[in-house]
Amino acid sequence: MKEIKIGTSSSKQKYGDRLDTVLIELNEKTKLSGLFTTNDLKAAPVIVCKENINENKKGKKYLVINAGNANAATGSYGLKDCKDINAYLGKEFDCQENQFLPFSTGVIGERLNLPALKKALIKGKKNLGLSNWKEFAEAIMTTDTKIKLIKKTILVKKEKVNIFAVAKGSAMIHPNMATLLSFIFTDLRINNGDLHKIHRTACDQSLNAISVDGDLSTNDSSLLVATGSSLVNFKDNRELLEKEIINTFKELSKKLMLDAEGSSKLISIKIKGLKSNNLCKKMARHISNSLLLKTAFTGGDPNWGRIIMAACNLEDLKINPNNIDLKIGPHKVFTKGELNKNYSEKKGLNEFKKKHINLELNFGKTSSSFEILTCDISSEYIRMNSDYRS
Amino acid sequence: MKEIKIGTSSSKQKYGDRLDTVLIELNEKTKLSGLFTTNDLKAAPVIVCKENINENKKGKKYLVINAGNANAATGSYGLKDCKDINAYLGKEFDCQENQFLPFSTGVIGERLNLPALKKALIKGKKNLGLSNWKEFAEAIMTTDTKIKLIKKTILVKKEKVNIFAVAKGSAMIHPNMATLLSFIFTDLRINNGDLHKIHRTACDQSLNAISVDGDLSTNDSSLLVATGSSLVNFKDNRELLEKEIINTFKELSKKLMLDAEGSSKLISIKIKGLKSNNLCKKMARHISNSLLLKTAFTGGDPNWGRIIMAACNLEDLKINPNNIDLKIGPHKVFTKGELNKNYSEKKGLNEFKKKHINLELNFGKTSSSFEILTCDISSEYIRMNSDYRS
Repeated sequence: MKEIKIGTSSSKQKYGDRLDTVLIELNEKTKLSGLFTTNDLKAAPVIVCKENINENKKGKKYLVINAGNANAATGSYGLKDCKDINAYLGKEFDCQENQFLPFSTGVIGERLNLPALKKALIKGKKNLGLSNWKEFAEAIMTTDTKIKLIKKTILVKKEKVNIFAVAKGSAMIHPNMATLLSFIFTDLRINNGDLHKIHRTACDQSLNAISVDGDLSTNDSSLLVATGSSLVNFKDNRELLEKEIINTFKELSKKLMLDAEGSSKLISIKIKGLKSNNLCKKMARHISNSLLLKTAFTGGDPNWGRIIMAACNLEDLKINPNNIDLKIGPHKVFTKGELNKNYSEKKGLNEFKKKHINLELNFGKTSSSFEILTCDISSEYIRMNSDYRS
Repeated sequence: MKEIKIGTSSSKQKYGDRLDTVLIELNEKTKLSGLFTTNDLKAAPVIVCKENINENKKGKKYLVINAGNANAATGSYGLKDCKDINAYLGKEFDCQENQFLPFSTGVIGERLNLPALKKALIKGKKNLGLSNWKEFAEAIMTTDTKIKLIKKTILVKKEKVNIFAVAKGSAMIHPNMATLLSFIFTDLRINNGDLHKIHRTACDQSLNAISVDGDLSTNDSSLLVATGSSLVNFKDNRELLEKEIINTFKELSKKLMLDAEGSSKLISIKIKGLKSNNLCKKMARHISNSLLLKTAFTGGDPNWGRIIMAACNLEDLKINPNNIDLKIGPHKVFTKGELNKNYSEKKGLNEFKKKHINLELNFGKTSSSFEILTCDISSEYIRMNSDYRS
């Protein structure tokens, strides 16, 4: 996608010489859809980015991304700092302040180092180029151990469509936008309404269906960008392209979970049979956040009692344990309130040894369901998060 | 309290030769108040105990306690096993089945070993004596590292009142009855109505105001027992005695938290200024369960950004960060949406070095409040809970 220029650099702050600053130039035709954290404490860049995405319809757009400092809980100073950067860039690029969309990730509660960040952005401007995707993915990492980058080219009736995706995790990933920055770019032709609709649908099934520790960040942002340079039009190939975009979001989510702080296992929890999809989602989130269950995953201990315990412990929802069916992998474990006679501890142990554990809880006869992707918790998680600022 | 006879023994199951079984004989005049888990998955002993406490008005009462197996999620078998033990004891003691009140703690989802438990209870019967309080406290431990025992004698107008308390923790301790068994005995004269009322009030301020990991057990039970052998009558000294009982519950809760699995610090979180005490309680619970915050406590890192992040992240409650005041110990950290100028990282660090950290969050001008006691999370917690069944 030659219409996207990426420049990376280092502000030489938290990460020494490592890349930690990204500037991305998008042409005037580019369409953008943004989805942001629902935490009431929205970081300054989230507030400014939301404003500018909605306001700015003219001219080039620039994504301004920094890792290491979230510029969150910084009150009016945070907003001032964010706008100061945009005003500075406005002069440098000879354009409007609202053409710059800021994204930050890192420590909460510290002010940005403006001189260092400005210097890094000027370097980023100098480095603007077509092939810096890997550097982009590297520069936005915080406690991530791996870059998250997907590049796909699809053929639709012999015409090419590109989908490139870049994201960072890795703790505080919880439904409704994790502490994550996610950027998905396509050259598809698509109108604003369709772009936003597909963005929301895709997020609900991917970024909003993963959970590391139940904490919801101040900075979570997902951006779906369509440059329109391909000859393929979304509305002519709706079904196929919708599927491809949703799958890219799902693959990216899986990459995020596989690199969740200190985790070693992926766990899918499928909830079925509650009164609505929303209740299934609430139950899935609740179970995925049980610390005792997470430690059972860590220990490879098919402690199904803890699963049932967590399921029966959702506030404001009355559960009859006698209606619960629990499956670990293909094995029926708990049926109508009792341990299944064909289940054996050995079967459970084999499933819990796997890198990807599948759990299914069925609470009744409705067709509602929701599936969440979560991970175990390890001593490493504790170490990483106790050390984070020091 | 000579009217209380305690007999302990070992079933030689999970803990080898360690004491793990307790039988307690209470005379006919004894009054009992029980409060139990709100988890929808109630263990068989909880169901049977609730029934028998309400039904049985005549004859001696026996508390039948075992550690190592929770007899939870065992369906109709669990109930059958529990009643089998009671029928067996009924014959042994020549009395009704419903005179026996069962309490279990330990692994969820395994059936009791009935022969081993019966044998241990017969030994317990032989060992019934007046001075076995320490053995009682030892026998109910699971992952606890210390016994929880309080013995108090108070003088009221020159007459003695005894209050003895025994409990076990230690993970899964969460508001609304932790995974805990708590037994508080007094020889006070008190009617059933007053006994139950003071029990509920005391629990709300103690056992229901502590949280280790947010999980709510299947077996939590609190029993308040009054034998009436003292000459002191509750209704003649209401204020003083209420205070003494509540304080005993609070001291016991503190002991539980100080021995919470793998934790090294005690954290009080006081929430003020939301619309109701209940909302303050909901917020206190929510913040106390933030994994990222718990790890900040572990690391001694006064990461106040994570406190504000968690506060702004309670589902279904809109928070304006600009109205939040945060204090760490005596220091004002965050005032009206911004970092306080007089606050320094050093001040926060000093508070976070302490064994007992005090946080206060004020959200507005109401007089509502709630205080919760929680703890940090350590690698040790992960290790203990990953290993639990193996």
